[in-house]
Amino acid sequence: MTAYWCERAWLGDEGFVDGVIVEVEGTHIAAVDRGEPPHGAERLAGLTIPGFANSHSHAFHRTLRGRTQRERGSFWTWRDTMYDVGERLDPDRYHALALATYQEMALTGITAVGEFHYLHHESSGSPYDDPNAMGEALVAAAREAGLRITLLDACYLSAGFDAPAEGVQRRFSDGNADRWATRVQALAFDDPGVVVGAAIHSVRAVPRDQLATVANALPGSPLHIHLSEQSAENAACHDAYGLTPTGLIADAGVLSDRLSVVHATHLTDSDILTLAAAQVYAGFCPTTERDLADGVGPARELVDAGARLTLGSDSHAVIDMHEEMRAVELDTRLQTQLRGHFRAAELIAAATSNGHASLGFPDGGRIAAGAWADLVTIDPASLRTAGTGGGEETVVFAATAADIVSVIASGRRVALDRAEVADRLAASIGAVVS
Amino acid sequence: MTAYWCERAWLGDEGFVDGVIVEVEGTHIAAVDRGEPPHGAERLAGLTIPGFANSHSHAFHRTLRGRTQRERGSFWTWRDTMYDVGERLDPDRYHALALATYQEMALTGITAVGEFHYLHHESSGSPYDDPNAMGEALVAAAREAGLRITLLDACYLSAGFDAPAEGVQRRFSDGNADRWATRVQALAFDDPGVVVGAAIHSVRAVPRDQLATVANALPGSPLHIHLSEQSAENAACHDAYGLTPTGLIADAGVLSDRLSVVHATHLTDSDILTLAAAQVYAGFCPTTERDLADGVGPARELVDAGARLTLGSDSHAVIDMHEEMRAVELDTRLQTQLRGHFRAAELIAAATSNGHASLGFPDGGRIAAGAWADLVTIDPASLRTAGTGGGEETVVFAATAADIVSVIASGRRVALDRAEVADRLAASIGAVVS
Repeated sequence: MTAYWCERAWLGDEGFVDGVIVEVEGTHIAAVDRGEPPHGAERLAGLTIPGFANSHSHAFHRTLRGRTQRERGSFWTWRDTMYDVGERLDPDRYHALALATYQEMALTGITAVGEFHYLHHESSGSPYDDPNAMGEALVAAAREAGLRITLLDACYLSAGFDAPAEGVQRRFSDGNADRWATRVQALAFDDPGVVVGAAIHSVRAVPRDQLATVANALPGSPLHIHLSEQSAENAACHDAYGLTPTGLIADAGVLSDRLSVVHATHLTDSDILTLAAAQVYAGFCPTTERDLADGVGPARELVDAGARLTLGSDSHAVIDMHEEMRAVELDTRLQTQLRGHFRAAELIAAATSNGHASLGFPDGGRIAAGAWADLVTIDPASLRTAGTGGGEETVVFAATAADIVSVIASGRRVALDRAEVADRLAASIGAVVS
Repeated sequence: MTAYWCERAWLGDEGFVDGVIVEVEGTHIAAVDRGEPPHGAERLAGLTIPGFANSHSHAFHRTLRGRTQRERGSFWTWRDTMYDVGERLDPDRYHALALATYQEMALTGITAVGEFHYLHHESSGSPYDDPNAMGEALVAAAREAGLRITLLDACYLSAGFDAPAEGVQRRFSDGNADRWATRVQALAFDDPGVVVGAAIHSVRAVPRDQLATVANALPGSPLHIHLSEQSAENAACHDAYGLTPTGLIADAGVLSDRLSVVHATHLTDSDILTLAAAQVYAGFCPTTERDLADGVGPARELVDAGARLTLGSDSHAVIDMHEEMRAVELDTRLQTQLRGHFRAAELIAAATSNGHASLGFPDGGRIAAGAWADLVTIDPASLRTAGTGGGEETVVFAATAADIVSVIASGRRVALDRAEVADRLAASIGAVVS
């Protein structure tokens, strides 16, 4: 049993409370009390919140940061660089890159990651000797970095409606959804910090008649899908099926309260009602949506209708959950020319409790007895945060990842050397970029 | 004479160059060479760029960071809090707050600030015994923080078209433009690092027949104006005069190549051509424009037509010029759903050479013989910047203010203790917020 005394801790609906004692037994919180520091308790000075859940990650995109902005960074700069890196990865390089990326995440207060994984096979498209070698490399990296992981193994069969997978995309495809399911059903990890979930890459990548196979392959597990990220996907889906992507997945029986729709940028009013009625998670990735010029999705409308907002750093143009939280509000302001869409507390919940639940960790993202012991402490007296009130608004609108001074993930302190992690990032990226 | 050896320095059109020797004599650069480190040279390891110019600042708005986001942070939360603080400032408190804010800026690589200043008088509206006591407090604070300052003394006479100044706005008004000019013409500082410029607060705040008086009060000096920040201003201007704000100031003879139009968010195509033909500076403040829900201005169109882009942190919701640089591109992406509007080098020039020129320091923002000796060094191997290529894209798209490891401003090293500055921020803000 380890006792922590938080100078100020965020207890969800109660907001920030001064003097909170958190008793940790192994990986979980055994008890939460209030009062003076008990003898021998470790002090957490500052603002302590639950660990962040990064609900949508493509670890290997960390190689793209900065690089895809060259020569003004068109969409093609981005896609060519991404595929170029995708060609060069093997299980060892994937592990090294993911380890560095997950360690960067751990240092920014992320305690669980949803890894949306589609680089399954050799460059030729043939399976590795161990057909799950690539996914297992990701899980090993997360465990080594001290993060919980939900491996969202993505079914990707076609490059577009009626377009076969080609080039690097052959690495993504299992041929059909049944073969994908057979491979994924063999994944097993004897660790409560590892969850296996399913993903439909997008309505472009899985034919209509195979959507249900993916959705039903892992009953009760998280299911994620990229949905309506760009207008072009909507147009192509309408041409192919006469439906919006939301209409299509609703028709195919994909909707449920274990589904996360990632991006959900270009939705009709009817799509919003359909998704919200199923109580899906809406997985926004605002810094990536800025980078990729996706546009601003209807976050407020989705939440008002009943969907649950989660947040992810996706392509890792930035890994800073503070930036993701505030970007939801700020980008909505740019779009509407009105302030005041989200309370700071709603955005903290999106980045913590909602996110962990969407990844199959319903007992995560809360400072409460029985929850995963994730405690992230923010300096309220840095250059950036000094004088900003020291409450929820400081966390969401003033702090950055650089203000995080202590991270406890699944009961263990994250004790990484920043310079070593930076060296590992540089080396693992250097090995795969041209 | 002090010699610096830059591992990698940004030389404008030549981009980043390895091994650059910068010889500094007093406040200016005497010579720039290339080669191995000379004996006794101080090494600057990392990416060295010219100092940033923060072309638009209201120092006292640093009090608002975080605080104006409460209860979802409507526009009225923001304005009420801002006016509440405005009521409580006197020259001593203004100095203390500006000193802390300018020290925060210095630590983020800003070497010159354009302070758009309108808190001139006592709360009653009466002048202080020294009518320029408030402006002089700002200049003293900047000098103490080691920044160059352009005091943009703003004429503010009315709260709106045909609406008198009231409440805290009485502090802003000199009664008429002639009295404003008399006060401003008395400002004199025997320091090449201090420039006095003029500002028209906005077309709302200075009646049409007094615009020229302000524009001509300080011939040859910088002139700034808030222009078309929100659609409501455009509509009210049209109702009052049948002109856009740009049309109005063009008609009144305000346009010239020493004018900075700040925000310039809601412009007609004709406005853009009019402004660009005069070769104005377009002063974008993207993080504030997000915060205040202003919208996304036509940065690319203005630059293509011939205006010169500058950047400011304005309300200081964030003080991080990296964030301002990338936000120009990223917010344009959100608006257009296309990537690739600005090269990174254009954004660095906006934040450095263009900005200094707009503030009346044409010999600033360049690493070249004869320029102000401002050298800002960024760590290319931090958690955020590692593996991102180490060039202009790293500076603009990966780095944050937290990655700045060395700042030399006007030939002097900025050697501030971050914790002391944070304490000063907390104390000076605590003295004026309720």
